[in-house]
Amino acid sequence: MTTATPTGLDPARVRAASTCQTLHWLASGRIDAAQLTDIYLDAIAAANPRLNAYIGLDAAVSRAQAAASTARRAAGRLLGRLDGIPVALKDNLDAAGWPTTAGLPARRGRIASEDAAVVARLLGAGAVVLGKTNLDEGVLGAATQNPHYGATRNPWQPEYGVGGSSGGAAAAVAAGLCVAAVGSDSLGSVRIPASHCGVFALKPTHGEISARGLVPAARRLDTVGLIARSVDDLTVLLQVLAGYDAEDPRSRKRRVALAPPDWEPGRLRTGVLGGLAGLGATPEVLAAFEQALISLRQELGEQRAVDFSDYPLARARRAGLLLMEAEMRQTFAEDIADTAQPISPALRGLLDFAAGKSAADYVAADRMLDASVLKARRVFAEVDVLVLPTTPAPAARLDEPEPADQAQFTCFASLAGCPAVSIPMGRASSGLPLGLQFVGPPGSDLRLLELAEVCAAALDGAPEYPA
Amino acid sequence: MTTATPTGLDPARVRAASTCQTLHWLASGRIDAAQLTDIYLDAIAAANPRLNAYIGLDAAVSRAQAAASTARRAAGRLLGRLDGIPVALKDNLDAAGWPTTAGLPARRGRIASEDAAVVARLLGAGAVVLGKTNLDEGVLGAATQNPHYGATRNPWQPEYGVGGSSGGAAAAVAAGLCVAAVGSDSLGSVRIPASHCGVFALKPTHGEISARGLVPAARRLDTVGLIARSVDDLTVLLQVLAGYDAEDPRSRKRRVALAPPDWEPGRLRTGVLGGLAGLGATPEVLAAFEQALISLRQELGEQRAVDFSDYPLARARRAGLLLMEAEMRQTFAEDIADTAQPISPALRGLLDFAAGKSAADYVAADRMLDASVLKARRVFAEVDVLVLPTTPAPAARLDEPEPADQAQFTCFASLAGCPAVSIPMGRASSGLPLGLQFVGPPGSDLRLLELAEVCAAALDGAPEYPA
Repeated sequence: MTTATPTGLDPARVRAASTCQTLHWLASGRIDAAQLTDIYLDAIAAANPRLNAYIGLDAAVSRAQAAASTARRAAGRLLGRLDGIPVALKDNLDAAGWPTTAGLPARRGRIASEDAAVVARLLGAGAVVLGKTNLDEGVLGAATQNPHYGATRNPWQPEYGVGGSSGGAAAAVAAGLCVAAVGSDSLGSVRIPASHCGVFALKPTHGEISARGLVPAARRLDTVGLIARSVDDLTVLLQVLAGYDAEDPRSRKRRVALAPPDWEPGRLRTGVLGGLAGLGATPEVLAAFEQALISLRQELGEQRAVDFSDYPLARARRAGLLLMEAEMRQTFAEDIADTAQPISPALRGLLDFAAGKSAADYVAADRMLDASVLKARRVFAEVDVLVLPTTPAPAARLDEPEPADQAQFTCFASLAGCPAVSIPMGRASSGLPLGLQFVGPPGSDLRLLELAEVCAAALDGAPEYPA
Repeated sequence: MTTATPTGLDPARVRAASTCQTLHWLASGRIDAAQLTDIYLDAIAAANPRLNAYIGLDAAVSRAQAAASTARRAAGRLLGRLDGIPVALKDNLDAAGWPTTAGLPARRGRIASEDAAVVARLLGAGAVVLGKTNLDEGVLGAATQNPHYGATRNPWQPEYGVGGSSGGAAAAVAAGLCVAAVGSDSLGSVRIPASHCGVFALKPTHGEISARGLVPAARRLDTVGLIARSVDDLTVLLQVLAGYDAEDPRSRKRRVALAPPDWEPGRLRTGVLGGLAGLGATPEVLAAFEQALISLRQELGEQRAVDFSDYPLARARRAGLLLMEAEMRQTFAEDIADTAQPISPALRGLLDFAAGKSAADYVAADRMLDASVLKARRVFAEVDVLVLPTTPAPAARLDEPEPADQAQFTCFASLAGCPAVSIPMGRASSGLPLGLQFVGPPGSDLRLLELAEVCAAALDGAPEYPA
């Protein structure tokens, strides 16, 4: 049961607040971590049976973490920047003591013995884990309609889905069931559901946040991704979570871990992806995108059309998918063989398709990533940032077949190793949110976030959240 | 016909000189580029029918380049650091106007239209191309016994081979048929033949020299490699040839393109690979290595045993080979299908083996590279440099089967993306050279070269070359 906090903060207001606002309340004593966590746990208890955002909860563990944070703050010995902030973890990230299902039935009881690197950083900064969030079976898909754990419903309209594969995480952020969430993004898996749920997401530069302890989907694509209720929150989270990890082969030491923004706002050159209709954008996504470009004409500086006619976007997306399917056949070898708790026929079909692919096919797909890296270098020699819709269409109804091309606009940043940010961009006629995406060259994460923040403020002065 | 130069330099002395010595003679006018090139072309005409180091020659082109260099020097307008230096190119590097055979029969007439990036840098620095050197069929092997272009013979003992796959390049450097050579190294392909021929080789940090225009063998392993007659020459060549190339997906911008040596000679910690006999080193390689460690006790500082018992070297080598075979099936798709100029049954067997491997097998092999990166990070957290023999055995006789594990000691640096240098290390009882290898963490190329130079001087005051 939720009640107002002793200092009078309304639970609904708490659950709509940004990470930065929540940190301010915690610091000023308007609320403590235990009260905050209780508000979120109560909300989860009330809403999760309907939304199915979380598939792993352990309120006793969450409350113990919150109590420890409260005690630390009382003693004046905070662990770090996120002390007391209740967060959600996508269920393909290891958290010691919790199972990591990766959306697979046979992993229900497989308890992680160590924290993923990013989870260790979260806990090391004092965050409180509220639970593990729903995802596609085997992290392969963009619908979060899991045959074993159920579908996650869209907080805005329950007969609609949330996209995926970090769908539970995005729904939890949108519905006020956590302050922020950590997921993963290999072809669009935080950006797509964030777009469908009207929240903010960052896929950082590949390698910027350690992927150790993340179930591998495709190592050249896998990034930890962040979902939050404001761009500022993404910036705070990134700064806490990024950094070199000697135990992650794709993590690299950098002279400056996060390069400070280096663009000149007055001289920004923004690339606008052309030919969107031909690439599958629906008329209402196109209209919203064109409206956003007009609304942001000040913020985006000089807008230049960027030509992708020499870059086969759909083929590149399918190449990325093949890399994921092949890697997952390796990652999930035991699960595939488990006849007692079988994977779904749909997933088996995808993985069998990969099994029919040869090592040379893999090489051909991997070369498409090289082509993507080169395309990105050419694009970012001409423009500072590329803008495009996050998804070609808004969320689909749960009773309709999952669209096959949800990652059409998010895949490029993944294949090229670039950072990308998604922010809300108006509404479809159904009332469901749409997303606007910013992509920059590798290492430009903070520049992208700064620009996304300016644009988010211009597009939508007062973000709202579903009741 | 070779005669003494007008200023009295003996051709044999010219052909044994280092790049640095040759540059000094050119600069001081003791010899000009045209005379120098003639000495090398005459030597090639005399010796190549016996050694078969070169499989592509075009004396008119080489003489025209040399004449242009001579004219530039006379006009005081040098192109760059290597102006007038005659070099050899392994025949898997594109040079505009020359065929690139990659050791395959069907590519005999395939003329490159553009220079490989490293060839463009060589020519841009004024170097003269003497020809294209022999290599294994399809660049797959370590013997340079090419069924279409013949075997390269060891300049020291013609009944022996040279190793590979850059065997022609190493033989040309050792036999005084070029000043230096540029080859490639994906699992040991410059280090192995340099070791077998008694010359010096550098496999740089992966990505340090652009691989654009190099026939891809395995993109995560492929590096341009250098072969020369001294460590100093390798340093000069590296500094001319390294640098960012936006058109090579694995090339990266660095704050400092080549990090200056940062070790303290008085405090050097040298890792010595243990268990060499169990890893396949022959008794005479073991004995020479132990003798080298004693001779270099001053230079190597504190010697620490490095344990590879947690790292499956032979399995990692085979994983690297699988990546090469799979990639080559893709690279050589047309050649495999060419029935008019068929590839050898042996190469077909290797590529068919790869064709039977699945995309998931490729992923498993690729993960072994991740494990190698992590192993290297752990090793180089404890020591500054790792020393080990370059090859487990000296060169084999041409009439004996090619040993299968020639890359056993070179593969680690390749799989981990680390730089490695090979220098001569005494002789086997047959009189054939052996090699000592230095491996360092990524980016430590100049440090390795500095240490290798000090060690080379201590091991062998006056290097000799075959008559």
